Amino acid sequence: MANGLYGGIEAGGTKFVCAVGTNPDDLRTARFPTTTPPETLARAIAFFRQQARAPLAAIGVASFGPIDLRPDSPTFGFITTTPKPGWANTDLVGSIRRAFNVPVGFDTDVNAAALGEHRWGAAQGLDTFIYLTIGTGIGGGGMARGKLLHGLIHPEMGHIRIPHDCARDPFPGACPYHGDCLEGLASGPAMEKRWGQRAETLPADHPAWELEARYLALALVNYICTLSPQRILLGGGVMEQAQLLPMIRRSTQRMLQGYVRAPEIIERINEYIVPPGLGERAGVLGAIALASGIAISPEPFFGSQTGKYSDGT
Amino acid sequence: MANGLYGGIEAGGTKFVCAVGTNPDDLRTARFPTTTPPETLARAIAFFRQQARAPLAAIGVASFGPIDLRPDSPTFGFITTTPKPGWANTDLVGSIRRAFNVPVGFDTDVNAAALGEHRWGAAQGLDTFIYLTIGTGIGGGGMARGKLLHGLIHPEMGHIRIPHDCARDPFPGACPYHGDCLEGLASGPAMEKRWGQRAETLPADHPAWELEARYLALALVNYICTLSPQRILLGGGVMEQAQLLPMIRRSTQRMLQGYVRAPEIIERINEYIVPPGLGERAGVLGAIALASGIAISPEPFFGSQTGKYSDGT
Repeated sequence: MANGLYGGIEAGGTKFVCAVGTNPDDLRTARFPTTTPPETLARAIAFFRQQARAPLAAIGVASFGPIDLRPDSPTFGFITTTPKPGWANTDLVGSIRRAFNVPVGFDTDVNAAALGEHRWGAAQGLDTFIYLTIGTGIGGGGMARGKLLHGLIHPEMGHIRIPHDCARDPFPGACPYHGDCLEGLASGPAMEKRWGQRAETLPADHPAWELEARYLALALVNYICTLSPQRILLGGGVMEQAQLLPMIRRSTQRMLQGYVRAPEIIERINEYIVPPGLGERAGVLGAIALASGIAISPEPFFGSQTGKYSDGT
Repeated sequence: MANGLYGGIEAGGTKFVCAVGTNPDDLRTARFPTTTPPETLARAIAFFRQQARAPLAAIGVASFGPIDLRPDSPTFGFITTTPKPGWANTDLVGSIRRAFNVPVGFDTDVNAAALGEHRWGAAQGLDTFIYLTIGTGIGGGGMARGKLLHGLIHPEMGHIRIPHDCARDPFPGACPYHGDCLEGLASGPAMEKRWGQRAETLPADHPAWELEARYLALALVNYICTLSPQRILLGGGVMEQAQLLPMIRRSTQRMLQGYVRAPEIIERINEYIVPPGLGERAGVLGAIALASGIAISPEPFFGSQTGKYSDGT
């Protein structure tokens, strides 16, 4: 008999966070560095075996991407083209299913975080919003009219192209696929390469932050014009620099020039571009929410083509 | 008694198209230039009075934007901040309702076109796609997981920022709000200002088209990374240049660098970026679809906050 608990894995490029529980108040978690796939997955499996005396009701996997979400694909449940060494073509869902034989919910780390924020955090009551994380990489997820963003595959918001003034910022960009896409210009590692020191060691009045705010605001303008979100949540390690969020708000407002005539943007930008309500736990709580969705639905998997999803929509 | 017919208005910046009917096969239409709001709306009203002997079941209004879609707003149903002279703060929905006292469905021209394409055109069977028009302006609409794109307001896809290499293209951009946003760089009028002649008079091998394809491909990359559409429909006057579509496809594929690992993009780009199936009639048929949605739903209006929409979702 299942014990009514869910397992959640936030598979990040830097660390894995695993949890057992049902909501923010009863969670037991563990975190460990992302090393090789066999070693890291073995630690996750060992954690669930140790924490859950009885079988878990379901497990949610919230992974860095790109991932394969097509149920009819031979590589469904895999991490696909990631530049992270050793992790391309890793069968995440299969590894977890083989170990536990329970339903596995699967989505991007950022869509899961969006789902967690929708259920318990800063996106409660909204139906169209974006969750963006700026850290080792830049990723975005969210909902449109109450459903997690999927389509052909899943969003890859970090890889949009934004204006890059090479005279002002000659750094060529750090994305192995696209050079100076958003992630190539504004991720934590891009900042470190550009300035020769880790982002968190740059003083708050360093010009790095004005440039970073500009790039992120350009991205936010593009997401606002494309999706018209009711709110934007900004998480990830780079956002821990407290000076950055107000700069992004000002810059976004300035760039939109009042064209999007919404009081949320023109008058209440501080409530429009906000930190995640669940902080660092958004991802793993999102994985728990994915698990609870897949446990309720009879569908064994999350699918982007079938119209059946583990968020219950 | 209503006669079972719907009215549709495609309110464009250059022309109005009005229609009475229920589907692509029974439509009676009229088109006339967009002059002043009182004159243009009077012609639309006269057309419906003349065509429909009995009251129409509902009327759909598909308008250029930005428009106010919030049911609780004092300017609901208005065109808001448009730069088009005379048309800012025009009460479209109110004018039509006062004339006919029937339910009025209301959305952007591009969301309506997307709805029309979904029902009868090139987006049938899809749940997440984009309809983009490149003409006097650039506008985009679409669906995410089966629902038209709304949120804070509606998308304004033409106003995203894309890389603009000022050395290669010193034209500063033509958008009165943002200068060199996508619309400022790539609309028909932007092409005309840059090259000193109307876009359709530029020969097919003119470098203008390579530049235009590049800007549009940059935009498509951004929409693909943000929304992950299953297909992208490209309409509007500028797309009537037959050489442009293949150039956009190649450029989009090249810029994505295989990162979005979907056969639709890597192997079948010709079926991924396509012309609208309804051609020029997408907008007005979309207006008819809006009307049929609002006639079925008990809600008198389209709303972006209430969760009730005239597309019946």
